[in-house]
Amino acid sequence: MKGKIEKVRGTRDFYPEEKRIQNFIFDVWRDVALKYGYEEMDGPLIEPIELWHEKSGEEIESQMYTLVDKGGRKLVIRPEMTPTLARMVAQRQRELTKPIKWFSIQRFWRYEKPQSGRLREFWQINIDVVGTESILADAEITATAIEIMLRLGFTEKEFVVRINNRRLLGGILLQLGVQKNRIIELCRIIDKKDKVAERNFRQMLADFGLDEKTISKLNDVLESEDYLEKVDEKKLSEEGRQGLYELKQLIKYMKSFGLWKYCKLDLSMVRGIDYYTGNVMEVFDISKEFRAIAGGGRYDDLVAVVGGERCPGVGYAMGDVVLELFMRKKGKMPKLEKEIDFFIATTSESLAEKAVEIAQLLRKKYNVDIDLMNRKLAKQLKYADSVGAKKIVIVGEEELKQNKVKIKDMKTGKEELVLIEELKMI
Amino acid sequence: MKGKIEKVRGTRDFYPEEKRIQNFIFDVWRDVALKYGYEEMDGPLIEPIELWHEKSGEEIESQMYTLVDKGGRKLVIRPEMTPTLARMVAQRQRELTKPIKWFSIQRFWRYEKPQSGRLREFWQINIDVVGTESILADAEITATAIEIMLRLGFTEKEFVVRINNRRLLGGILLQLGVQKNRIIELCRIIDKKDKVAERNFRQMLADFGLDEKTISKLNDVLESEDYLEKVDEKKLSEEGRQGLYELKQLIKYMKSFGLWKYCKLDLSMVRGIDYYTGNVMEVFDISKEFRAIAGGGRYDDLVAVVGGERCPGVGYAMGDVVLELFMRKKGKMPKLEKEIDFFIATTSESLAEKAVEIAQLLRKKYNVDIDLMNRKLAKQLKYADSVGAKKIVIVGEEELKQNKVKIKDMKTGKEELVLIEELKMI
Repeated sequence: MKGKIEKVRGTRDFYPEEKRIQNFIFDVWRDVALKYGYEEMDGPLIEPIELWHEKSGEEIESQMYTLVDKGGRKLVIRPEMTPTLARMVAQRQRELTKPIKWFSIQRFWRYEKPQSGRLREFWQINIDVVGTESILADAEITATAIEIMLRLGFTEKEFVVRINNRRLLGGILLQLGVQKNRIIELCRIIDKKDKVAERNFRQMLADFGLDEKTISKLNDVLESEDYLEKVDEKKLSEEGRQGLYELKQLIKYMKSFGLWKYCKLDLSMVRGIDYYTGNVMEVFDISKEFRAIAGGGRYDDLVAVVGGERCPGVGYAMGDVVLELFMRKKGKMPKLEKEIDFFIATTSESLAEKAVEIAQLLRKKYNVDIDLMNRKLAKQLKYADSVGAKKIVIVGEEELKQNKVKIKDMKTGKEELVLIEELKMI
Repeated sequence: MKGKIEKVRGTRDFYPEEKRIQNFIFDVWRDVALKYGYEEMDGPLIEPIELWHEKSGEEIESQMYTLVDKGGRKLVIRPEMTPTLARMVAQRQRELTKPIKWFSIQRFWRYEKPQSGRLREFWQINIDVVGTESILADAEITATAIEIMLRLGFTEKEFVVRINNRRLLGGILLQLGVQKNRIIELCRIIDKKDKVAERNFRQMLADFGLDEKTISKLNDVLESEDYLEKVDEKKLSEEGRQGLYELKQLIKYMKSFGLWKYCKLDLSMVRGIDYYTGNVMEVFDISKEFRAIAGGGRYDDLVAVVGGERCPGVGYAMGDVVLELFMRKKGKMPKLEKEIDFFIATTSESLAEKAVEIAQLLRKKYNVDIDLMNRKLAKQLKYADSVGAKKIVIVGEEELKQNKVKIKDMKTGKEELVLIEELKMI
């Protein structure tokens, strides 16, 4: 015998108690997605590396698990869903009814330093609308994220959805004199604003090439809470105005969903992925103790990048790791105990076959467990209690002579003798 | 724009219509497992390669997807569940209540030549009992496999569960003069009996070293249908007698489950995995057109192999690929259409916000879809039909003046005007 083999770092074993929690979260995710008319889909866990050669952003690319198969092809264990979704849309672009409203609840891998809120293996729900430019779609997916948070018991005092628009931010940066071809680079720096000290952030902007005055101006805009009231549209580029319009549309629709109170404009929020083109959103705990709980946005060019025709899309992902941490922190994790409708116990080992027959009768309607260890009655009852049996059927020699068994209700403690024949009708 | 990127060979895209089928199968799997008192669990998709260094059998090892992570560790994308399960049992061996009754419905990868019934990415339900030597556990897991087949609509004319016992087969081989340390090797040849022509099988036995007479004797036993009636126990080794006892126990219990009629003794069925120690079983289509639909058995040494204490276990896996082929072949695949409770249509784009408000009212109880493309009413109704809307709410200027909307029942064609206020009570 060798020593125990350990699981891979940054992964989790889901014993039944952990799996019950995971299933609880998955059920809320799925239920909300179905409520808004989304259909479940999935794609392969492993994709060709070409799917990530453009537009994913350098952070994700540096974290990908890659492998070479026996045919020499370079493959990736998917770190995110959107490129697979774009590939599947591109493949059947003409046949698919628009808008395409898809969701998936799946497993992903990223090579990260395991730390609070970040694991190497994690799950996400992805919710996407493809095939429409209407900002109502942006609002609808954002509404599903908020509804998930509300279903889990969070309130507006605990979480906030930060929204922004890439085109608007681009317009603002142009207005400040940044060259068009350096905007993505600058956005990546802005993305770090909340993660570093202000001094370091200003230094990064200076290193990028902004002067002291521009840095201050930029900082003022990024931190402005009333930008939309104060903005002078005429000073924005055409793209900036388009972004402003999209953002205002999103706000208007969030109000009609009755969910605007959970949202907040944040011009410094850009998301660390390069394929977003318009509105972007992130769900955060208000105290900013954790990383983002969910994030997404518009990606109007992505389907074309993977070989389809240009096709507008908007979507987001919510991960399980930060969500669970946040649920525990705020006491939102429900108690989920094991339970079973019936446990069939026997007074003697020789009655095992009879116990099986009775279990089979009850399994027509109920979930039923049975002793598989030839244990004495007292031990069986202890086990029945540990699996959360609601009722126990005791099969005994004496009762069997009258074709009866004893049923004990574990909640009330009440016992009754019942004809085996009648178990079919329970 | 570059050309379309193709998915990896041997994988499947699950568009909503395929995902509905997969979910249907998963629901039957899960429901049966819960009915018999099994709890869902899961482990990481990627495990350390050490978990497969012993006891898995050469076929699986040659098919594993391996990768080296950035820390230089050699990892495996799991080709099967049982080693993960054994690792998790070993890790908490003392705390876990016995018997451990676990199931999982998960994704696996094997590098195989994609062909009918074999893909590189596939799903399995795994059902296991760990911690008891009682053959009642062997019978119970076999019963769950049969119940799944029955739930999917298959009859005893369409599938059969072949059962055997490794110890008994070992005893028979000893009796025929095979050396003890060559039995596993010979079992691997016997495993191929059904997959090659008889002539080739005899040749393989001859190459192994059996003489003509022994080959004929062995063939007679392997094909015997009434071995259990004819066997002379006294001539068997002690281990052979133990195996015979286990097999008879399994048959006895399958009878008490009322499911023996779906089973058949097959002494030539050994399963291509080395860790099985006692009873083994496989589910097959009767015509043997397909590969095995499910397979498993007793693995009493496996937990010790991965670093735990010796601990008896029994389990099986059923895969999705052959099962789906078999369902289609026998016409058991149900029609699963997309459907939604309500679709909210508008007579004008300006009413989109009102439509959202009404959708939100109905979403308290129902699944509701809405137009996200600013389409004309006729196109909205066509879309509503394509998503299987049961009822359509039409939001129009005139009706809104009376705080009403029109509801059309798509099944009966009936239309009625309803106060928006009343939608809360529907």
